Amino acid sequence: MNVQEAIEKLNDLELKEFAYGHAMGILSYDDETVAPKGSGIPRGKTMGVLSELSYKLSTGDEARGLLDFLKEHYDELSPEDKRRTDLRDKSMRELRAIPVEEYVAYTELLNDASNVWREAKNKSDYKLFEPYLSKIIETQKRFAGLVRPDMDPYDYCLDQYEEGLTREKCEEFFGALRRRIVPIIEKVKAAEPIDDAFVRRRFPVEDQRRLSRALMEIMRLPEDNCVIGEVEHPFTTGFSKYDVRITTHYYEDNFLSSMYSVIHEGGHALYDLHSDDRFCFTSLEGGVSMGVHESQSRFYENIVGRSREFIELIYPEIVKLSPEMGKHTPEELYRAANVALPSLIRTEADELTYPLHIMVRFEMEKAMIGGDIKTSELPEMWNSLYKEYLGIDVPDDKNGILQDSHWSGGGIGYFPSYALGSAYGAQLLHKMRESFDVAEAIKAGEIGKINGWLEDKIWKYGSLYKPSELMEKAFGAEFDPKYYTDYLERKFTEVYRL
Amino acid sequence: MNVQEAIEKLNDLELKEFAYGHAMGILSYDDETVAPKGSGIPRGKTMGVLSELSYKLSTGDEARGLLDFLKEHYDELSPEDKRRTDLRDKSMRELRAIPVEEYVAYTELLNDASNVWREAKNKSDYKLFEPYLSKIIETQKRFAGLVRPDMDPYDYCLDQYEEGLTREKCEEFFGALRRRIVPIIEKVKAAEPIDDAFVRRRFPVEDQRRLSRALMEIMRLPEDNCVIGEVEHPFTTGFSKYDVRITTHYYEDNFLSSMYSVIHEGGHALYDLHSDDRFCFTSLEGGVSMGVHESQSRFYENIVGRSREFIELIYPEIVKLSPEMGKHTPEELYRAANVALPSLIRTEADELTYPLHIMVRFEMEKAMIGGDIKTSELPEMWNSLYKEYLGIDVPDDKNGILQDSHWSGGGIGYFPSYALGSAYGAQLLHKMRESFDVAEAIKAGEIGKINGWLEDKIWKYGSLYKPSELMEKAFGAEFDPKYYTDYLERKFTEVYRL
Repeated sequence: MNVQEAIEKLNDLELKEFAYGHAMGILSYDDETVAPKGSGIPRGKTMGVLSELSYKLSTGDEARGLLDFLKEHYDELSPEDKRRTDLRDKSMRELRAIPVEEYVAYTELLNDASNVWREAKNKSDYKLFEPYLSKIIETQKRFAGLVRPDMDPYDYCLDQYEEGLTREKCEEFFGALRRRIVPIIEKVKAAEPIDDAFVRRRFPVEDQRRLSRALMEIMRLPEDNCVIGEVEHPFTTGFSKYDVRITTHYYEDNFLSSMYSVIHEGGHALYDLHSDDRFCFTSLEGGVSMGVHESQSRFYENIVGRSREFIELIYPEIVKLSPEMGKHTPEELYRAANVALPSLIRTEADELTYPLHIMVRFEMEKAMIGGDIKTSELPEMWNSLYKEYLGIDVPDDKNGILQDSHWSGGGIGYFPSYALGSAYGAQLLHKMRESFDVAEAIKAGEIGKINGWLEDKIWKYGSLYKPSELMEKAFGAEFDPKYYTDYLERKFTEVYRL
Repeated sequence: MNVQEAIEKLNDLELKEFAYGHAMGILSYDDETVAPKGSGIPRGKTMGVLSELSYKLSTGDEARGLLDFLKEHYDELSPEDKRRTDLRDKSMRELRAIPVEEYVAYTELLNDASNVWREAKNKSDYKLFEPYLSKIIETQKRFAGLVRPDMDPYDYCLDQYEEGLTREKCEEFFGALRRRIVPIIEKVKAAEPIDDAFVRRRFPVEDQRRLSRALMEIMRLPEDNCVIGEVEHPFTTGFSKYDVRITTHYYEDNFLSSMYSVIHEGGHALYDLHSDDRFCFTSLEGGVSMGVHESQSRFYENIVGRSREFIELIYPEIVKLSPEMGKHTPEELYRAANVALPSLIRTEADELTYPLHIMVRFEMEKAMIGGDIKTSELPEMWNSLYKEYLGIDVPDDKNGILQDSHWSGGGIGYFPSYALGSAYGAQLLHKMRESFDVAEAIKAGEIGKINGWLEDKIWKYGSLYKPSELMEKAFGAEFDPKYYTDYLERKFTEVYRL
């Protein structure tokens, strides 16, 4: 075998890995969007078979022999193939440490857990979900110990979503945020409240669907490769640059909720839709980490979507669909879309208090993975953290610990990416402004200008660089959360006329 | 290995086959219902990988060794395992005759062909679709020659959908139908026309969706295991008895179209939902042939759904959703739902002229597979057959040769099942009446009584018996198309007061 043959084998292997992941992804997407409630049994069987297959493919003799060869010839490889080799080396070590039966059993557990979580949330009954969460936590701890016995188990969890992120870095980051954000929140609380009752007027679902289509057009999301589905808890799945699915949930009495979820998920989708063509069906296609992914989604949702200029841009569309809204000025809508108040639901939270929701989950996850808290005590811990961080009482589990789907899907360690992504986004804005007037571009509806800049600095690279490396290249500097806290202070001082 | 171990291996093998089929089925369903238009490239890749895998699993050394063992110990097997062995023996012979590359290439061809057919139909442009149809025909001929060189190639095609069906049997069957049906159609044409303009009044899609839900309830389709999707060309996919999808298409000016497509697909779904539990995830789960499948769907659509009693049953629901319809009596609606007139579109055709649409396709398929007609001449042949059989002019390919999806999916030999199924259904009615008053049960909304009878005679057996064996057991006699022609004559003499 020569290097060229090895790369062909690698392409073939990665195509197969793509195919299994694609098939499992479509099964999950179908589950979340349209599958009948009772379809869990066959889906569990199929997921079990496919995940075993996928495991064996990625860890089998052939894959191992190929990896050994690539490592021996590392110096002869292109930068792209070096990165693929590194990624494969890392995941091979992880996968081979986990016995195949446990890997398969975990996939099946997650399939069941998602279904049970949905039911538990509907019934606001944590007890239904508790045994599944308990098993997920145990499995995560066990996998952490098997894969990286040298590492703090929660650091291992964080690293799954953001290569190199640790509990310590999070603590430092969240500490800095909290010190700057809490005083702003205090000032906001003391300021004159903003009237936002009018945005909760009835906005029929059919009209919200029209608004979603208009938003997708404004964001330049190509309808041939990106469609929107309706789900309980919105998410984005990118199967390839040819097929990305965003989702939303419509509430008739809160059109801003779906509007901002569409913009948020649209940001994820843009990232997935713009990997360089040469990465198609390889491990380098698509976003590199959840932190970088969230930096894109939260950039569009907040920095773009909640700007005065964007509100002015979308205002005529909103008034066309809901003439009642025309009784209020764009400025009133802008302020209503930026009401900052401690609240119960993370995905509905404003930009300012949002990081506190993440800090609650960070504390919870540390306790789950690192501490010795019983799963039965988790709702109480959740509720008391909401009291401590946000000063509010949680009325029930549906609006408390059961609100997010992440843990039911095994996503422990994911949440910090949202806050990190928000901070990345603010630093990207700072840098972008050196190239052009961002506010002016939004005002003119030239979102393509923003897309072009991000494609050039982030999207096209897929997973070619490590997250921190990619971001530093884009920033032209080291990551610094002060851009984020400065941004928040500036914005909310202005919105609340502090 | 002893017999018990062999059966465990067989169960495991069939579970894997189920899983691959399930994954590919969900990918297709997603394609038909919600996938973005441009998603064909990744789906083609994944389908290619999965179909190769599936082929290798079903034809590999392990599967062959197992089959040899089962054949050696055939006498020791249960009737169920004997049937599984027979089915596997048949499909092994078929699959092994086809080289894997050709099998994979064909799967990819069909994926592309479906997408192109949709576009061609939309644009009413046969030329777009022609090269794909040409390749499909060539491949079908080639596969027939490889698998069964001893057999007439079109007989091979027919046998794929109805074990044991031949061109000769079809010719005899269609001959008998035509002799009896054509004179009835002539009388109907001479009779006083029925006024059915009122059923084409606007019926909003949202209200039609409500009607679909009511129909599913009346038919006892369990919502936990059966959901409805919206597509261009309605179909049913049964992934397992836990998950069956029916689909429909809503036309605002023709609510009967979706009403009868829901009832038709609902009949397929009931069959798939009621295999015996012990057949789950084995080759015996689900319907045995397309002929038997269509016997169920067309039984519900026509014999039940277009009966006077069913119209009386659903009438209040229709009037509730569309009060305008209340200006007409149930009797008027009954007659309007049974207007028998030669028409362009098979799926919209009435019960009486329907078999003529099938005969056109039968003639087309014989020419495609057995004759030496050029694909460029097929639209002309289609149009002249519609003139000859139905006496009507085809205005364009959209309403002509491009109307059905079957050929784009490789389904040459499928159509005769529809007519055969209709005839099976009439003989089932005859037999069912010996047990209870079917009209009375429908009138009383006791569809469960009909479901129970069919479950007992047909559904629960899954694929345990050959189609002809299963039907003869149910009929307690040989198949005889006279029950069908008698039924049609009685019904249309009465509807048209001949």
